Amino acid sequence: MLEELKEKVCRANLDLVKHGVVLFTWGNVSAIDKETGLVVIKPSGVDYSVMKTSDMVVVDIEGKTVEGELNPSTDLPTHLEIYKAYPSVGGVVHTHSSAATSWAQAGRGIPCYGTTHADYFYGEIPCTRDLTADEVNTEYEKNTGTVIVETVGHRDPLAMPGALVKNHGVFAWGTDADNAVHNAVIIEYVAKMALETERLNPEARPAPDYLLDKHYLRKHGKNAYYGQKK
Amino acid sequence: MLEELKEKVCRANLDLVKHGVVLFTWGNVSAIDKETGLVVIKPSGVDYSVMKTSDMVVVDIEGKTVEGELNPSTDLPTHLEIYKAYPSVGGVVHTHSSAATSWAQAGRGIPCYGTTHADYFYGEIPCTRDLTADEVNTEYEKNTGTVIVETVGHRDPLAMPGALVKNHGVFAWGTDADNAVHNAVIIEYVAKMALETERLNPEARPAPDYLLDKHYLRKHGKNAYYGQKK
Amino acid sequence: MLEELKEKVCRANLDLVKHGVVLFTWGNVSAIDKETGLVVIKPSGVDYSVMKTSDMVVVDIEGKTVEGELNPSTDLPTHLEIYKAYPSVGGVVHTHSSAATSWAQAGRGIPCYGTTHADYFYGEIPCTRDLTADEVNTEYEKNTGTVIVETVGHRDPLAMPGALVKNHGVFAWGTDADNAVHNAVIIEYVAKMALETERLNPEARPAPDYLLDKHYLRKHGKNAYYGQKK
Amino acid sequence: MLEELKEKVCRANLDLVKHGVVLFTWGNVSAIDKETGLVVIKPSGVDYSVMKTSDMVVVDIEGKTVEGELNPSTDLPTHLEIYKAYPSVGGVVHTHSSAATSWAQAGRGIPCYGTTHADYFYGEIPCTRDLTADEVNTEYEKNTGTVIVETVGHRDPLAMPGALVKNHGVFAWGTDADNAVHNAVIIEYVAKMALETERLNPEARPAPDYLLDKHYLRKHGKNAYYGQKK
Repeated sequence: MLEELKEKVCRANLDLVKHGVVLFTWGNVSAIDKETGLVVIKPSGVDYSVMKTSDMVVVDIEGKTVEGELNPSTDLPTHLEIYKAYPSVGGVVHTHSSAATSWAQAGRGIPCYGTTHADYFYGEIPCTRDLTADEVNTEYEKNTGTVIVETVGHRDPLAMPGALVKNHGVFAWGTDADNAVHNAVIIEYVAKMALETERLNPEARPAPDYLLDKHYLRKHGKNAYYGQKK
Repeated sequence: MLEELKEKVCRANLDLVKHGVVLFTWGNVSAIDKETGLVVIKPSGVDYSVMKTSDMVVVDIEGKTVEGELNPSTDLPTHLEIYKAYPSVGGVVHTHSSAATSWAQAGRGIPCYGTTHADYFYGEIPCTRDLTADEVNTEYEKNTGTVIVETVGHRDPLAMPGALVKNHGVFAWGTDADNAVHNAVIIEYVAKMALETERLNPEARPAPDYLLDKHYLRKHGKNAYYGQKK
Repeated sequence: MLEELKEKVCRANLDLVKHGVVLFTWGNVSAIDKETGLVVIKPSGVDYSVMKTSDMVVVDIEGKTVEGELNPSTDLPTHLEIYKAYPSVGGVVHTHSSAATSWAQAGRGIPCYGTTHADYFYGEIPCTRDLTADEVNTEYEKNTGTVIVETVGHRDPLAMPGALVKNHGVFAWGTDADNAVHNAVIIEYVAKMALETERLNPEARPAPDYLLDKHYLRKHGKNAYYGQKK
Repeated sequence: MLEELKEKVCRANLDLVKHGVVLFTWGNVSAIDKETGLVVIKPSGVDYSVMKTSDMVVVDIEGKTVEGELNPSTDLPTHLEIYKAYPSVGGVVHTHSSAATSWAQAGRGIPCYGTTHADYFYGEIPCTRDLTADEVNTEYEKNTGTVIVETVGHRDPLAMPGALVKNHGVFAWGTDADNAVHNAVIIEYVAKMALETERLNPEARPAPDYLLDKHYLRKHGKNAYYGQKK
């Protein structure tokens, strides 16, 4: 079932390797099938070098396996919380990419220092609060999703398609699996540049709002004029 | 038309990927045909992995498409301002390369700390001022070009073949598309070294003028003695 | 003899190159055969590009060569001290990987700033004290092993499968050669992130204990639920 | 003439690319033929991707071309000063590798923070003083060699096989072209680690002398025991 989606999700997982944002079996990508509400996700702890389409696991929105021999990624409950909260989201990605995870470990959101960031993220990429001991000890992965949703809040999730989880790493999302991977890779790129920006100028300020608006809106929304007519 | 130039521009765009200064569809290269005054530029938002010579767009100096099915890069008006201001320029490149964009985000020009820099750039690589809200809201890409020209000013553009655009990224240029790419790659390289130089020695000073003159002039101008006789 | 183990050790050595944690002939991997107590180790100063299974050297637990034409790695006595102290260890790795060695040169252990670290190392990765002049001048490599064991102490070596040797580099270990390489690569990864974490937030604190416990224990121990059923 | 040496020098130049210490046509390697006193060097400004053995230029110790169609590297006079001062040197390399050049731009020698460094360089890798305006304006490349020799002084050049030239870059040397390249690559590696070491611990001190002695001497000199019997 959902063969096409499984193939897309498998390929999107392998793109994480290609873009250098995962190591070993770390990281995972899922996508949701809007018609059935089923989610396709990477299996837990399988090497990217041997991963194939048929290894993808199909689960329902409560996380029950519908098809697949392998255990789904342990981060599945986090993915599901994001899908439940944001119907416009079609794909979710988790990575421990190096620069972005350093921001997460520092407990800081990534300020929007320039147009590279503003082209994809409408403002600072937020970092969650600490999970409490209770939230960690019971239903940890689900609560990770809850705190992400709490942090992103009522923003349009496609205008802020990612967040840092404190002391942990990156979750990113998008219209589908590919778009979510795209956003995860960009988070790593802007994380690295923001690091150096602050080093070069400890007084550096986020780019002016009118510049950010311009860049975000020339790529997104009804007056977008970047790229080719679809 | 201009088949040879389209091939050169296409290949120069792909060289951006090879040198690691672009990600996804970011970045663009153009070149001007001196005889006809027409400009060849990368299409907007097309993946480098599938880009081919026939995708290149030919426009006139006012930006009107003369040949090509695709939209030209949205940064085209910036390229055109540079060609209009500097008749000696034959190619223009735009990137968001990581270290150089960090300087742009910090709002700082790159000081000339050594001979690597001086071999290609005669002094500090300047960073533009902020564009005003008006300049961003109306004809943004054109005004980006205007502020670059305002910043480089009356210098010989081939002795200062690049500038940082504040909170944005890199524009570089040269005698042709290849030379412009070459300069864009070097900006990234010297940006990275200047970062580390300041870390190692917060009191670091630009290299002495007599050393910079020596290096710039042994590669450029009538007494140049680097490389092979042409 | 021990052909299978020699092949595993040879391949594990080559994995060091693949993961970018060694340069030239630096670094070495060994593994112990539990049945015979013999150790297989990389030869000293042989290029990875020409290294083959038959170059591996078999030694006894006192370091006497049992099979092999080449000298064993000069670091052999360090490996042997680790095997002697920790019967659960099946493989040992030594590298001078860049970020982790920077911590060793700074004389600092790597704090556990996040879950990437906690997934594999149960707390701060410790850095040894200085060896004394006497320890360096007599049986240096053996004493390097002694000081590692002194530093790791009574901890479960598989819950802290590595240490930094002050002004020197990384020793990592694991259940077998592959697992030891895996841990050496992760030390480099978390070393790099911890560096940036402190830069972004000089007041950064290790992640809360309850988060570290959760992550370590979801991958290890009897209630582990990461990966596939074995 | 000297076909074997030309082949070695050509391949050593290409190794600079392989090890990521040069960009474009930057960098150069030479070697001296002890019997004839002739020097083989890379031509000036030729792309590594098309460079071939027959492009190598043979010059005498005063720099006069003995064989070859192309101009020798402009840095030739620097190489020659090193050969003249140090008869034990068989090969010389010049690079602008990124981390090491950052130290040169900062005007600082690289402290010996650990055994990676001590394995190859017996103490701090020194940085030259500024050249005077006169030294730059007249016989610049020759004077660059003179100031290197002045800086290294009466040390055994094979125990300190490299130096940083202030605001410029790296010169390294060795017993032959390959060994010189090897040392140039290691300078870049230790430069990068020393950068991070100081960031992690601004009070970091060079490793104790007895540790440095041990490491240098276990690889070099009559009691060396690293590697295989020659």
